Amino acid sequence: MSSRAFSVIQPVPVPAGTAEYNALVDAILDEFAAKVPQDLYLSQSMFDNPPTDVTAVPRECGLLSAEEVDITEKYDAVGLAEAIACKKLTAVAVATAFGKRAIIAHQLTCCLTEWFMDEAIEQAKALDVHLEATGKTVGPLHGVPVSLKEHMPLAGHYTATGFMDTRHLDTNDCQMASILRKAGAVFYVKTAQPQGIMHLEGVTPRGRVLNPHNINLSSGGSTAGEAALIALHGSVLGVGTDIGGSIRGPSGFCGIYGFKPTSSSLPMKDFLKGGFGAELNIPVSTGPMCNSLRDMDLFVSVIMAAEPWKEDPRIIPIPWTGLNGPAPKAPLKIGFLMNDGAIQPQPPATRALEWARAKLEKSPDLFTVKSFEPYGAATAIQNIRKAYWPDGGQAVRDHLAATGEPMFSLTEWVLADAPKGGELPASGVLAQRVARDEFRYAFADHWNAQDVDFVVCPVFVGPACEHDTAFYWNYTAFWNYVDYPGVVVPTPIKALKKGAEDYPEQNREVLGEEDRHVREMWAKGDFEGAPITLQIVGRRYHDNQLFAALGALKDVLELR
Amino acid sequence: MSSRAFSVIQPVPVPAGTAEYNALVDAILDEFAAKVPQDLYLSQSMFDNPPTDVTAVPRECGLLSAEEVDITEKYDAVGLAEAIACKKLTAVAVATAFGKRAIIAHQLTCCLTEWFMDEAIEQAKALDVHLEATGKTVGPLHGVPVSLKEHMPLAGHYTATGFMDTRHLDTNDCQMASILRKAGAVFYVKTAQPQGIMHLEGVTPRGRVLNPHNINLSSGGSTAGEAALIALHGSVLGVGTDIGGSIRGPSGFCGIYGFKPTSSSLPMKDFLKGGFGAELNIPVSTGPMCNSLRDMDLFVSVIMAAEPWKEDPRIIPIPWTGLNGPAPKAPLKIGFLMNDGAIQPQPPATRALEWARAKLEKSPDLFTVKSFEPYGAATAIQNIRKAYWPDGGQAVRDHLAATGEPMFSLTEWVLADAPKGGELPASGVLAQRVARDEFRYAFADHWNAQDVDFVVCPVFVGPACEHDTAFYWNYTAFWNYVDYPGVVVPTPIKALKKGAEDYPEQNREVLGEEDRHVREMWAKGDFEGAPITLQIVGRRYHDNQLFAALGALKDVLELR
Repeated sequence: MSSRAFSVIQPVPVPAGTAEYNALVDAILDEFAAKVPQDLYLSQSMFDNPPTDVTAVPRECGLLSAEEVDITEKYDAVGLAEAIACKKLTAVAVATAFGKRAIIAHQLTCCLTEWFMDEAIEQAKALDVHLEATGKTVGPLHGVPVSLKEHMPLAGHYTATGFMDTRHLDTNDCQMASILRKAGAVFYVKTAQPQGIMHLEGVTPRGRVLNPHNINLSSGGSTAGEAALIALHGSVLGVGTDIGGSIRGPSGFCGIYGFKPTSSSLPMKDFLKGGFGAELNIPVSTGPMCNSLRDMDLFVSVIMAAEPWKEDPRIIPIPWTGLNGPAPKAPLKIGFLMNDGAIQPQPPATRALEWARAKLEKSPDLFTVKSFEPYGAATAIQNIRKAYWPDGGQAVRDHLAATGEPMFSLTEWVLADAPKGGELPASGVLAQRVARDEFRYAFADHWNAQDVDFVVCPVFVGPACEHDTAFYWNYTAFWNYVDYPGVVVPTPIKALKKGAEDYPEQNREVLGEEDRHVREMWAKGDFEGAPITLQIVGRRYHDNQLFAALGALKDVLELR
Repeated sequence: MSSRAFSVIQPVPVPAGTAEYNALVDAILDEFAAKVPQDLYLSQSMFDNPPTDVTAVPRECGLLSAEEVDITEKYDAVGLAEAIACKKLTAVAVATAFGKRAIIAHQLTCCLTEWFMDEAIEQAKALDVHLEATGKTVGPLHGVPVSLKEHMPLAGHYTATGFMDTRHLDTNDCQMASILRKAGAVFYVKTAQPQGIMHLEGVTPRGRVLNPHNINLSSGGSTAGEAALIALHGSVLGVGTDIGGSIRGPSGFCGIYGFKPTSSSLPMKDFLKGGFGAELNIPVSTGPMCNSLRDMDLFVSVIMAAEPWKEDPRIIPIPWTGLNGPAPKAPLKIGFLMNDGAIQPQPPATRALEWARAKLEKSPDLFTVKSFEPYGAATAIQNIRKAYWPDGGQAVRDHLAATGEPMFSLTEWVLADAPKGGELPASGVLAQRVARDEFRYAFADHWNAQDVDFVVCPVFVGPACEHDTAFYWNYTAFWNYVDYPGVVVPTPIKALKKGAEDYPEQNREVLGEEDRHVREMWAKGDFEGAPITLQIVGRRYHDNQLFAALGALKDVLELR
């Protein structure tokens, strides 16, 4: 290998800031690069002339052994845990394989903020020794690598809450990391999130997170790095957070599984030290991102088995039954929300809904398929966009000013509806609360009148979007506004090459200005290869029932 | 009977307001009095020279038949429902007995805001006809009279949210009333609450709610009327709300059972139309007040069986197991909080704790009794007093000004710590949220370190206090600040006559200025006959476990 600089593919640069800020970014990039041995560098040609679809690169680049390819591609987290527990694989071999694959994924998509394979191998060695000595695993995740989003504190590593000035070294695990560690998880990376953790994309000071299926598209966000990393099998199980789509959006864009539980279901203690004004009315959720239903289920069951509410009483102690809960009463009543009344999904998203609908309709004994009439999306989205910024966005501007960090265009976008003229008074926060609750009552009535158990809908207004264009959060943020749990699952559908498909006849009516904008972006863009996913939503705090329904939907929707 | 004016006993008057306001009060009092037939008036001598303890008056005044005395005294709600279902009693006989007894109770304690016995008898007739015709009850509360606090909307009746200007006629039942009505409940009264619904007493524009055990003492508040009415057996089951002790305080003062669930457990839709700023950080709870454990359990089970979360998704759908849930693992670890570190309870409250403690210590196979060390009460109370008024109390002042309503002394007291200089900005509300959550984490650690399942503590700083002196909410509001469920249960202990007991030796140390004030009030006051109750508290959302524990404690603590 030559002694060239460490590179990542970056088709569209991110804006620079002041000299002070740029120096901070450079220092962080240098610190990162210094840890990566040159023998894990991809060849220069990959950066000179990258393929649009990089998903085959890890397997084909020659940096991974055949066993490492197998370990990273042939198992989900449940499978890995089993293989390690029965000594078919060692924790060290698994940590090595995922550590190597993660740094390859990073060079392809800019998905990491930290990479510490050496530490991971030390953790894994200790686990192997323990298993050898005692014959027992330390817990259900013994040796399973787990990736964490940058803002989740992990002892000895850097945390930032979306701004350069918030980056600091942590001395303790947050509750989530602590529970995972005790269950045997091996930590080896932290993953990229956008400015303010408030884009549905992954535009970060270190670079732009790319979609592995098409690097000209966004990976989604804010849990951007996790989605790209998991789609490239550089992680088998990651942890995201979601206040407007930040688990579901990137899972959808990258074609993986993601679960946003109802709020206060899983531990978030210390995730946002100092608090986040948006949470006065719109709570954040945390949940898993991975490659199978049973991995999502494993994740939640491991966390809940630790009785996390004893440390953080914000968590509601509903026992987790998940996929193993009682089978739902057949036929399941499934409502298909084909559009939200405000923005018609772009053609491949509609195609995936039609595909799923046709599948379910073939089993009328199991599923009653209905159309779910849209309700109040425009109001919900307008309200939530305001409720995100009770301080009028002042905290964001203060953070940026602290280091001369530039305001990225999507940060401007999310702040566009923030209250003008400074922060809201308490009575304004209360008015938002009252409006939110009135909306929730009305939507509950609407749902009850439709008489469905679950809703299937798009994850986004279309496939993964082009860079800097994730404007319309409609299909995810709506469910944050009402705080309903939602799961994203892949389909076999992919976006075709540019011009190969158009809006079907019945979707030609333009629903409004935003819909027109989305159609323009469809006409202009090339989304080839972008995976299309579905979102399945249940009533608030019906997370167990949602998983029981996923169990019933697994075979018919070809889920893993 | 003479044609004298309708009277209620009022040893200490409530302040008058402007002429406009006084006229409104008079009109309301006249409207009420016009509905009461003179043959249900107590004799004039009762007002000229009332007994201190009025609990025997309903039975002895001659206005109730022997059967009516039996119906109102010998049954709890479960018993009444059974007796009506098996046609031992008719719903009409029950409605008549409670209607009559309620208006007697009102003359003794000023506990009602509306009395509509005629309507109740109509409801009851329809229920009797239904049972006769179908052989079936309409639901588990078929024919059981239920009393509602003034601020809970009931079709055709007046609601007010603690201020004269908010009084209005409702055309629809709130969700709580609707569920109870469908289950067969008969409504016949609404009950008194204090100004702003924010005193731990019952000082209302119509008069002062008196403690039936000693009319010179407060009934507690804010669910003041319910407590006095239930203690006098003018109601068998009532509904309260609690954001600082408003179910538990009056239940404690009047010696009945009361349950404040964890927040978002039971329906409160439309209870506070327009919202209440305090709820941005301190949620209100609603729950039953009654005369037995099983009645509290019946109430919650009836509500939860209606799946109220479908209409109000704020409600957490944890299935209710209550008293019928799995028996807790023996020995139950019970921590006794003998004082909160800020205010030493007055002697009879300590005596009741010692009584309970000694009882439990006799069954070490069933109970491990511990001392529960106090934690942060002064901070919690200071923080919650501020968090009640994010608007600086402006809404209160506006409501009062609207009709010339005078500010009662306890309203001044609760507003004393409201933020000065107008309402908080959103960042101030967020700072309160963060402080609250940090406190909750720290208290959870404290509880975990003490290794207890449940805590037994006082309900108040002493027995029911003298009028206008319910200053220190420590023992109830603390549990609102952490949002833990709490139940109040009676004991056989009563306060002795003035001078008959003093602080025990080990409680002589004065803990601070507030403690000194409470000791002064003890030395000055005469609390003879005031019942002493205990509060039993569980972890947040461990309401089912709390009831399972109550099942285990029932016999040893002589509960009903």
